[in-house]
Amino acid sequence: MKEQVDALLKAHLEVHGAPVDDAELAEGYGLLAQFVLNGGKRIRPLLCALGARGAGHTDERQALTAGAALECYHAGLLIHDDIMDSSELRRGRPTIHRALAHRGELFGQSAATLLGVQALAWADELLDAAGAQGQARALFHRMRAEVIAGQYLDIRAHRFEDPSIDRALTVIRYKTAKYTVERPLQIGGALAGAPPELMDSYAAFGLPLGEAFQLRDDILGVFGDPTQTGKPVIDDLREGKSTVLVAHAFAEATGPQRQLLRAWYGNPRLDDEHAAELRQVIVDTQALAHVEDMIERRVDTGLKELRACAMDEDARAALVFMADRLTHRNS
Amino acid sequence: MKEQVDALLKAHLEVHGAPVDDAELAEGYGLLAQFVLNGGKRIRPLLCALGARGAGHTDERQALTAGAALECYHAGLLIHDDIMDSSELRRGRPTIHRALAHRGELFGQSAATLLGVQALAWADELLDAAGAQGQARALFHRMRAEVIAGQYLDIRAHRFEDPSIDRALTVIRYKTAKYTVERPLQIGGALAGAPPELMDSYAAFGLPLGEAFQLRDDILGVFGDPTQTGKPVIDDLREGKSTVLVAHAFAEATGPQRQLLRAWYGNPRLDDEHAAELRQVIVDTQALAHVEDMIERRVDTGLKELRACAMDEDARAALVFMADRLTHRNS
Repeated sequence: MKEQVDALLKAHLEVHGAPVDDAELAEGYGLLAQFVLNGGKRIRPLLCALGARGAGHTDERQALTAGAALECYHAGLLIHDDIMDSSELRRGRPTIHRALAHRGELFGQSAATLLGVQALAWADELLDAAGAQGQARALFHRMRAEVIAGQYLDIRAHRFEDPSIDRALTVIRYKTAKYTVERPLQIGGALAGAPPELMDSYAAFGLPLGEAFQLRDDILGVFGDPTQTGKPVIDDLREGKSTVLVAHAFAEATGPQRQLLRAWYGNPRLDDEHAAELRQVIVDTQALAHVEDMIERRVDTGLKELRACAMDEDARAALVFMADRLTHRNS
Repeated sequence: MKEQVDALLKAHLEVHGAPVDDAELAEGYGLLAQFVLNGGKRIRPLLCALGARGAGHTDERQALTAGAALECYHAGLLIHDDIMDSSELRRGRPTIHRALAHRGELFGQSAATLLGVQALAWADELLDAAGAQGQARALFHRMRAEVIAGQYLDIRAHRFEDPSIDRALTVIRYKTAKYTVERPLQIGGALAGAPPELMDSYAAFGLPLGEAFQLRDDILGVFGDPTQTGKPVIDDLREGKSTVLVAHAFAEATGPQRQLLRAWYGNPRLDDEHAAELRQVIVDTQALAHVEDMIERRVDTGLKELRACAMDEDARAALVFMADRLTHRNS
């Protein structure tokens, strides 16, 4: 299915290039196309397609086109996110604002902001191409408001005070669990005319599995292998990303451990040596073990709901497989 | 009609508030609502409604709802634009990133970026609420790509070399003339099932009138009365906004005049004294007179097309009135 999504995106981008013939504009659009087409795991389109299949749809083209819309939307958000976080790399390549910084830092940021907005607009074009109506569109709108709110709470959170566990949980619910799992499943379901009970089941297992997915991501952001994840393993600590993992470390830290966290977590000058000390605190406070446990509990809850609901058996089997892959991955 | 647009926007925003109950998120959404509702002239919705009326539609609610979508889209772009330009004021009030800077500069920029993205998303919700289909949606998509390209060429333009007249004309065509006049008229026309000839006429007079509108805006940005325009009259010169007006001044400048332009135009340290000297150069090179002449020629061409085409007479009369207001205004 990943290949189909890539092909749909490629076909869309070929037809919807820059509306003005200009070499520098073409450079920007070229980078944007590369960013969208070099797009990682395609989790959202797969879940959208499985959401439709779960409700009995066998023709996946419509759901994958809506899934391609989700990918374009996500690309737009990531491009903006990278500007906000001053990230240098994304998926092992320079971020768009960095790739355009050879024309000036401010130019790179402004141009990347605009290219992100173009990616967001492509999402709506693809949603139209999918022929999405009524409930599917309403869910797409809802999903956007949720992810924006989740991101807003996230940027607020990581600039001011010691991270709070509750707040970090709210952030991952809106920024990831609903956005990456629950809503894509439901949008696929809505396209296939799923009954309300199945839509509720998509929420009942999508939310815990989505949370587990983000908790895994947070662990990988601190303890992952950069050759696998494609991004420097120091970034999350340096930017002070306020994760459930780190919030637990703060909550359980002794005096000296908390001092270390306050001094270096979110410090732009964080070096490898102090990053290693932060990791040790996260291990010693049992935060790592605690979050691994949270992941397992959420996977259990999610799988129980997934196995109990009335849905297409092929879709169920594929979702069980994905649940494991997403929550026990190393990249 | 302006009151109807405001009411439609207000009703939409009341229903589509922040999806998470949180005081700081509420602050951001409050600022965003204020920004959207305090939205200036509502030119695009008016043109959208007149585009529909021109094709014989008498019920304006649909076109005004699509017009409200255009306003939300525009709000999102302006919020991002203000970040890119580090603008302090918009319509006499602090820009959103400034209003949120009390929580930190970076927070203000990131939060405003997200709020801008939310405004862009509201546009799609309102377009759905208008029941826009087929051609109207395609034109909306086209319009977005055009304005993004126009902005991209604009930021490129004003950071590198002496401004070029040709490039400045391309920018105003895509960033303003199509975006603010031609496409809103056509979207209204498409909603009303306008025949292809009328859609062509909307382009034939929309484009020159839209260019004239922007040329007037550029003059007001340099020579306007801040108590009327709501923004400091030094900003455009200080940020080096690459207008047709300034491009003409560069093209006609003598040696010392060009030196002055190069030294102070786009210089962040521009003070009132040197701004006055720049204005004098723009007058002395005949750039001001030339652009006034360009405006009149475009208004003439536009009005000729507008008077010649087959359309509803009330809509035509309203458009003639607007053409004058938009191109001979002082705010």
